Amino acid sequence: MSVELKNDRLIRALLRQPVDMTPVWIMRQAGRYLPEYRKTRERAGDFMTLCKTPELACEVTLQPLARFDLDAAILFSDILTIPDAMGLGLSVIEKQGPRFEHPVRTATEINKLGIPDPESDLAYVTDAVRLIHKELNGKLPLIGFSGSPWTLATYMVEGQSSKTYSIIKGLLYNEPKTLHILMNTLAKSVATYLNAQINAGVDVVMVFDTWGGILTPDAYREFSLQYMQQIVDQLQRESHGKKIPVILFSKGIGNLIHDLANSGCDAVGLDWTQDIAEIRELVGNRVALQGNLDPAVLYASPDVITEQVSHILAGFGSAPGHVFNLGHGIHPEVNPDHVKVLVDSVHELSKPYHN
Amino acid sequence: MSVELKNDRLIRALLRQPVDMTPVWIMRQAGRYLPEYRKTRERAGDFMTLCKTPELACEVTLQPLARFDLDAAILFSDILTIPDAMGLGLSVIEKQGPRFEHPVRTATEINKLGIPDPESDLAYVTDAVRLIHKELNGKLPLIGFSGSPWTLATYMVEGQSSKTYSIIKGLLYNEPKTLHILMNTLAKSVATYLNAQINAGVDVVMVFDTWGGILTPDAYREFSLQYMQQIVDQLQRESHGKKIPVILFSKGIGNLIHDLANSGCDAVGLDWTQDIAEIRELVGNRVALQGNLDPAVLYASPDVITEQVSHILAGFGSAPGHVFNLGHGIHPEVNPDHVKVLVDSVHELSKPYHN
Repeated sequence: MSVELKNDRLIRALLRQPVDMTPVWIMRQAGRYLPEYRKTRERAGDFMTLCKTPELACEVTLQPLARFDLDAAILFSDILTIPDAMGLGLSVIEKQGPRFEHPVRTATEINKLGIPDPESDLAYVTDAVRLIHKELNGKLPLIGFSGSPWTLATYMVEGQSSKTYSIIKGLLYNEPKTLHILMNTLAKSVATYLNAQINAGVDVVMVFDTWGGILTPDAYREFSLQYMQQIVDQLQRESHGKKIPVILFSKGIGNLIHDLANSGCDAVGLDWTQDIAEIRELVGNRVALQGNLDPAVLYASPDVITEQVSHILAGFGSAPGHVFNLGHGIHPEVNPDHVKVLVDSVHELSKPYHN
Repeated sequence: MSVELKNDRLIRALLRQPVDMTPVWIMRQAGRYLPEYRKTRERAGDFMTLCKTPELACEVTLQPLARFDLDAAILFSDILTIPDAMGLGLSVIEKQGPRFEHPVRTATEINKLGIPDPESDLAYVTDAVRLIHKELNGKLPLIGFSGSPWTLATYMVEGQSSKTYSIIKGLLYNEPKTLHILMNTLAKSVATYLNAQINAGVDVVMVFDTWGGILTPDAYREFSLQYMQQIVDQLQRESHGKKIPVILFSKGIGNLIHDLANSGCDAVGLDWTQDIAEIRELVGNRVALQGNLDPAVLYASPDVITEQVSHILAGFGSAPGHVFNLGHGIHPEVNPDHVKVLVDSVHELSKPYHN
């Protein structure tokens, strides 16, 4: 368990300690843009089988590391494993997104939900973590993750993604107490789940709040941020004498990033609509920042990619505490050669900022 | 043409002049949530026929005014009429959104585009404006509108709405000069079109920048805001001795609202993710603010609607310059009785702020 990391740039940057160059990893780095991923996925048959077979999850987790000089591995899994373990019946169909067979919408249905035991109900995840941890053998840190309570709730109540989120918002405005019961169950479940991932060997945990940005500022604080805060408070922040940094990422929340940075987390993720220089000024040095290249820049030619990377590095400046990433998951149509340009130029162009 | 308005609350609020109560209108107030609209639409056959038949467009424009005590009528039309007039072949299929038969993607295709002549190529719009103006007979102001150049460009290049906007963003990052040619043509076309609507009788114009929020801050300023600014500069701001206020609305731009408010427009629209009290502090009294109730609040019970209305009125406070609206178009599933609660409570609850 206590293997020394050969590359600890990510951990150091998340803890705002000096590094030799800015670490970089990519959301959905193990994904459809890689031909080798598409092959494994085909072998698995469907997406959830890929997630639920530790050997295959391990295989795809490692694929991008063989191609690119990335500073982290991220567990291959889905953000919605918890509601699946609660019995809602998750399926993920390509181009349609996730779908639950049994959405929960009433107080009765919500009150019945239990907190999954990760080591039994989500053993495929902790098994995958142990396997990847062993395979990595200290080469790179491993990031574990979950969807945020609010994001899990949107899918659990709607049954799928939505344009208007009318069902969960109806619940939010009409029966806030019922929704709070669901949110509490989810916050406890996510904390328990992430602690199990930490015990199984992940070095960093990240919470993806994909749908925090559909809320009004007040509702964001009450129904999304409050429960991420609970998770941060309940997380095991040290394991085997090493600190386990926590990253929170709410997409599309603008200035509410200021509130998110006050949650006690180590780092916040930025989407590409935020100006990293302005956000750094806004939140100061309380947390590290992760991000935030427009994923669409990877459609551009190598010199444009390099130019945009350089713009973000300059925006953040020279203090410690920057982890380079895209502002959202990598698009499936991207040319893998462009990813190499991105990763290498982050390393190369960031060196002057770390002298 | 120069009929005195019997209700000029909207105009006064947009020009930041005192009013007796806060004016209110609703984006997509003539729309699918109204059974009478669905009947007319059925009679028309399809959405574009409804837009292109002035008598029918007039009929649906007036429908919500018969039900609710609204402070404005808004021309029934589509934001994408200009590219349709350029020959791209617009169709709007329910639940699928707009689609262009002939997207433009190359410099050759873009260079070929001309600026439509509103009085011939878009006569169905100016005819509808004249008809509605006559029917209203000064009862209420009439709002004219167009999509923003950037929003028109996204549909023209992609051919439809998109999750990743890979084609137009590829153009933006790889061939910015080509995209600027398109943007210039569109800015001129929109300005010409809105001036024709003003000449035909609209009292206010609004530019809908639905997709400004998918851009990085730099790209927003360069490809969206710059061209809305050009439009503001080219608009006829007075007609028959009356001022014609201009409203700009970019969805999902967070703090960039500050830049938008510097464009010389009279008012900016806010989506529901913004805190109207904070935005008012940020932009000061330079412009009026329009918005910004979460459209999903209309799923809630009347007392919740009233409470949320009151929260926004209190957030804006007592100075002139607030136009109440939703933060986005009304959802098709909303109960019309709830809209009545909204409109009446805005009027009733805002009176104390205007003494």
